[in-house]
Amino acid sequence: MKLLVVNPNTTASMTAKIAAAARTAAATGTEIVAATSAMGPASIEGYYDEAFAVPGLIAAIREGEGAGADAAIIACFDDTGLDAARAAVAIPVVGICEAALVTAGQIAKRIAVVTTLERSVVPLEEIVARYGYAARARVSACDVEVLALEDAGSDARARLEAEIDRALGLGADAIVLGCAGMADLAAALSERFGAPVVDGVAAAVKQAEALVALGLRTSRRGAYATPRSKPYAGVMSPFAPPAAREILGSD
Amino acid sequence: MKLLVVNPNTTASMTAKIAAAARTAAATGTEIVAATSAMGPASIEGYYDEAFAVPGLIAAIREGEGAGADAAIIACFDDTGLDAARAAVAIPVVGICEAALVTAGQIAKRIAVVTTLERSVVPLEEIVARYGYAARARVSACDVEVLALEDAGSDARARLEAEIDRALGLGADAIVLGCAGMADLAAALSERFGAPVVDGVAAAVKQAEALVALGLRTSRRGAYATPRSKPYAGVMSPFAPPAAREILGSD
Amino acid sequence: MKLLVVNPNTTASMTAKIAAAARTAAATGTEIVAATSAMGPASIEGYYDEAFAVPGLIAAIREGEGAGADAAIIACFDDTGLDAARAAVAIPVVGICEAALVTAGQIAKRIAVVTTLERSVVPLEEIVARYGYAARARVSACDVEVLALEDAGSDARARLEAEIDRALGLGADAIVLGCAGMADLAAALSERFGAPVVDGVAAAVKQAEALVALGLRTSRRGAYATPRSKPYAGVMSPFAPPAAREILGSD
Amino acid sequence: MKLLVVNPNTTASMTAKIAAAARTAAATGTEIVAATSAMGPASIEGYYDEAFAVPGLIAAIREGEGAGADAAIIACFDDTGLDAARAAVAIPVVGICEAALVTAGQIAKRIAVVTTLERSVVPLEEIVARYGYAARARVSACDVEVLALEDAGSDARARLEAEIDRALGLGADAIVLGCAGMADLAAALSERFGAPVVDGVAAAVKQAEALVALGLRTSRRGAYATPRSKPYAGVMSPFAPPAAREILGSD
Amino acid sequence: MKLLVVNPNTTASMTAKIAAAARTAAATGTEIVAATSAMGPASIEGYYDEAFAVPGLIAAIREGEGAGADAAIIACFDDTGLDAARAAVAIPVVGICEAALVTAGQIAKRIAVVTTLERSVVPLEEIVARYGYAARARVSACDVEVLALEDAGSDARARLEAEIDRALGLGADAIVLGCAGMADLAAALSERFGAPVVDGVAAAVKQAEALVALGLRTSRRGAYATPRSKPYAGVMSPFAPPAAREILGSD
Amino acid sequence: MKLLVVNPNTTASMTAKIAAAARTAAATGTEIVAATSAMGPASIEGYYDEAFAVPGLIAAIREGEGAGADAAIIACFDDTGLDAARAAVAIPVVGICEAALVTAGQIAKRIAVVTTLERSVVPLEEIVARYGYAARARVSACDVEVLALEDAGSDARARLEAEIDRALGLGADAIVLGCAGMADLAAALSERFGAPVVDGVAAAVKQAEALVALGLRTSRRGAYATPRSKPYAGVMSPFAPPAAREILGSD
Repeated sequence: MKLLVVNPNTTASMTAKIAAAARTAAATGTEIVAATSAMGPASIEGYYDEAFAVPGLIAAIREGEGAGADAAIIACFDDTGLDAARAAVAIPVVGICEAALVTAGQIAKRIAVVTTLERSVVPLEEIVARYGYAARARVSACDVEVLALEDAGSDARARLEAEIDRALGLGADAIVLGCAGMADLAAALSERFGAPVVDGVAAAVKQAEALVALGLRTSRRGAYATPRSKPYAGVMSPFAPPAAREILGSD
Repeated sequence: MKLLVVNPNTTASMTAKIAAAARTAAATGTEIVAATSAMGPASIEGYYDEAFAVPGLIAAIREGEGAGADAAIIACFDDTGLDAARAAVAIPVVGICEAALVTAGQIAKRIAVVTTLERSVVPLEEIVARYGYAARARVSACDVEVLALEDAGSDARARLEAEIDRALGLGADAIVLGCAGMADLAAALSERFGAPVVDGVAAAVKQAEALVALGLRTSRRGAYATPRSKPYAGVMSPFAPPAAREILGSD
Repeated sequence: MKLLVVNPNTTASMTAKIAAAARTAAATGTEIVAATSAMGPASIEGYYDEAFAVPGLIAAIREGEGAGADAAIIACFDDTGLDAARAAVAIPVVGICEAALVTAGQIAKRIAVVTTLERSVVPLEEIVARYGYAARARVSACDVEVLALEDAGSDARARLEAEIDRALGLGADAIVLGCAGMADLAAALSERFGAPVVDGVAAAVKQAEALVALGLRTSRRGAYATPRSKPYAGVMSPFAPPAAREILGSD
Repeated sequence: MKLLVVNPNTTASMTAKIAAAARTAAATGTEIVAATSAMGPASIEGYYDEAFAVPGLIAAIREGEGAGADAAIIACFDDTGLDAARAAVAIPVVGICEAALVTAGQIAKRIAVVTTLERSVVPLEEIVARYGYAARARVSACDVEVLALEDAGSDARARLEAEIDRALGLGADAIVLGCAGMADLAAALSERFGAPVVDGVAAAVKQAEALVALGLRTSRRGAYATPRSKPYAGVMSPFAPPAAREILGSD
Repeated sequence: MKLLVVNPNTTASMTAKIAAAARTAAATGTEIVAATSAMGPASIEGYYDEAFAVPGLIAAIREGEGAGADAAIIACFDDTGLDAARAAVAIPVVGICEAALVTAGQIAKRIAVVTTLERSVVPLEEIVARYGYAARARVSACDVEVLALEDAGSDARARLEAEIDRALGLGADAIVLGCAGMADLAAALSERFGAPVVDGVAAAVKQAEALVALGLRTSRRGAYATPRSKPYAGVMSPFAPPAAREILGSD
Repeated sequence: MKLLVVNPNTTASMTAKIAAAARTAAATGTEIVAATSAMGPASIEGYYDEAFAVPGLIAAIREGEGAGADAAIIACFDDTGLDAARAAVAIPVVGICEAALVTAGQIAKRIAVVTTLERSVVPLEEIVARYGYAARARVSACDVEVLALEDAGSDARARLEAEIDRALGLGADAIVLGCAGMADLAAALSERFGAPVVDGVAAAVKQAEALVALGLRTSRRGAYATPRSKPYAGVMSPFAPPAAREILGSD
């Protein structure tokens, strides 16, 4: 099967890291196609950046679906645009935050999500709550800018480790890495701390493989109904939803 | 004071209706400036449309702030882009869903939110929950497309009344109209049903006036911190956050 | 319009302070009428005092309504007697805790309520939860007796500032002052801490103005139905609800 | 031991019925002393009546404590004044709603509380939630005025039975009678419906006996701290809390 | 009446201590019959031990019912097997955790449950949440193995006191002892800390007496329906549910 | 990899059906080893049966781990013994209810779980809540005994379809089959109703594959800590936990 992994920020070096993590996790027979969004912020740190990452993300997912992807993964821990993307395409779409939580929840009772900046804590708490993990997961930040994770000379790793240490001391049983830019660190951190450390990119690859293998597609009932055809204006007009038939194919 | 009311969909006739409702609610001395978004969908019905309404919305709010608005109102009941907008500008930003709920909550215990299409019910339930009203407010749809509210010949009014009737029968004490396109109906519906009917546009005008009069601005701590300056690519690049100083002024 | 602000404790110096804060917040054209309850405790600290503040409060609100008030404000942060008052009179009734929370919630995600004594923390947590803000607001006490706030020589201000400092350190984005007796401090504290500080009295004035301007009155359905006419005994007998017609007028 | 059962409404015939139910439930060696409040409404139906029942209730409990009662029971299903009473006296105070819920919760998973008038549903839902039973208990009304339960010729019994029938059909495993005035009906209703029917008065007698036998008294930490001594004004002045020593005795 | 108290672990010395606590709490006329489970772990510390304590527990309760017990108490703070036992027998079954919580909840707002080992904290948090006390009760461990409580020479008492001290400092109003093996310590600890300390064994005796005196039995509707007759295999076969008639008697 | 699928009831025909569903879902290279528990009830319907299914289940999982299984699946929708099993063995253990919910939650907002008998509804609601899906998932029963699903001549299929139809009418976007005995029906039901239908057995195979592929094992911190070595008595004694070293291997 072919899985599209979209980095919704526009920093290609991060895409490369994400793609590598995805390929390591992929099953034999799973092809990983990685894409960097062509529009939007260089990193996604909080509500504002999130909002502007969505059009490029949707464009990339639409394009990937057209090129034959069986499922798509949104490789930003805010699960930016996840609900819009699920409504937009027929293939399943997996968010790395949701994937990481459902994975960690099957091996641990109390989960610590460690993200980058304080400004992302509340946005993550909101989706953690929406996914149903508020009572089991605590979100905190290690005070590292996202792109500092791309800079080998920064103290990002040390700050992340300090925060993981603190989270375990507060009672966490497992750690979830709260940024796609940490995807290369899970194994080493797990070994260092003697506790499960879950990377959302790898977790999402397995969830996407699962949905495809099970033949499950996003429900078209309720909130994920195919967008109604209507005019879109301005630079957004290319995103106008065509008739449902065109989106979902003729069957 | 000057209040900017942005219709984040691109249908000008709806903006006119919204502006009229806002002007009716405004205090003496409050000037209502209404703007129609220049980018995005003609109506906002569910997650997909929401996502593409944000850039035009933020552009309009930024422009309004530059032109001296004291506060901004987002006149779509999904409170589309509200968190991004609060991070983006220094002036307070009010969402009509949040404004309607806090208003209704001070005159009734159990609230029914009646919106347009079924696909909007879960998105609204999610923000109702985030605002803290899940235990008191029930969301339902009257199966009317947003733009049918603009068409005097449609059966939109009859369907809306039928759903209000049903909601009152299920125990609601007050009704919240779950679409900015219903802003002209509140008074007549309240009279007809003998129960408070709250329109979010009018409610938001009063909340915005309140915040301005009290001298309160969005906190810059935590999730609403000013976006960090960084590169933005593609058609999103005009939205790249400049340095905080430029956004918030020199003080 | 005419707004009645009732101090439900019997300390007139606190009423003066409250009235001043209310007048500062009031719009042009809003007349503030302040009343001190004639019955009950000199300060309201916990469940016991709350219970005995209600009859005097209701009497004052009834009287104010008779004298033409368009809305009433209960200026005690426990929102003492708020539900009974809403059932009792036809005009809207606003509580300063609820008003402060809905105001702070529109400019910040995480709210710290700082009140006076530890014994008031749980009562406030209970109403914060009822209003739907439990997930966003944390209540703590600064260990100051209510009337110490009236005493310029006390260390009340220092203790309050210390607790605000602690609350911000724990992640609050905005502060809500948890006692009407702190109404004069909001502006100075906001400036000192560089974070929004919301005083419930001022917030309530704006919420009351909003309800009046919107023509909204307490719903008569469900829990706020007009009290049924029935005998009352003892010193409570003057509070016996007359027939609904007499309460709400002839229309 | 001596248990004081206070009917906080001022209808003596209801007190007689309550006393009989209490005596039937009491253990050998438990003396039931029943008191009718001397102040307040003839029946308690919603927030307004509740508020005015408290002073008479507290007076009766204070008097009962002075006369040697080992514990007090508040025999109104709204648990009117319960928190204030717990702060006021040294002996344990039991509410019939709380007692009924904790009892029913030990013999059934899903509980239906059937009360009198619709206006009491939300107030009861609020205390049910505060006690922690919101997920397990549903509250509904049978549309019977409280005093109609005193009138053998009314259709109160038929309406109550119809509502119980409906609640069982909706999945309840046990019924809680939501008004002290139904205390005489539990046994017959249980037999008729083949399901446990819990009367709060009887349940409260056992909870009060339990607390006394275990030597447990209300905690003086936190919200139930002894009221601070302070001036009270007007007809409320007799309720002014004296020094803690006077309230709790010299030990 | 005759109350069966089952120690579901297989350590007889703990049964003796539990029986003594139960007898101290029992009313005149209540006979306490204590039983040690014949199957399972010597102590119950976490999910694994819990699971294997159930068959012996159910056997003991069945036997006790056959020998005329009027109610049964499960004397392990995990309320091990409580739901299965309620379905299994006609007499009421009381768990010491649930009994302790409902008792503490009537004399305090905020409860601290202090248990033995960290591994039991989440299992207890889960039942505390199911009983509805999550918002009011905090669970922590004092790092003492259950059987160390049987060893007078251990430092168990000192560790327990240190944790109680910490819990009170964090705002608890009352303490619940989170292990049946602490049943002998409640009185001394209460005196030492000047706060209510609730032992679940004693609390359960009173709750069981209450249910028996009120004539209440476990509802047979819903989740506690009598197990359907069906084959059981292996060493579990003696536990196969016979026909309902045989279990519940002929009436 | 080798996945052990344990049917915790003792009905071999159901194991065969479960094994077939598991093999259909398994990836190339995944070997499914199915085991029927040797001890316990022929079907698991409610709390009582659940309790007695655990020892046989744990024995089968221990044995499977010894024979080289990489992960284990508990194929009963109550997730019977899941927490005990996770503590017992080093390999990951997946429950079919949890697996089905996390799968359905990635393709739908509102989930309907349709189980067999009414008595299982509350037990399932309790685990659904514990997993965090209470706000999104509704549980109902189709009134079919588990073993009737094995009987081609029964009306089980018709009843199940009627309940699915009802659930969709109430707003569900996706269906979760609430019994392992329905594992063969998912595809046909999905086609018939035009909505995603998730079978827990298939979902669990993919979750188990995911955990194994990611190298994740159950955390040994907190509630899933390896059981402490201690004596076990009676027929339970073979289950006594040996020293941790013996359980988890020498590394």
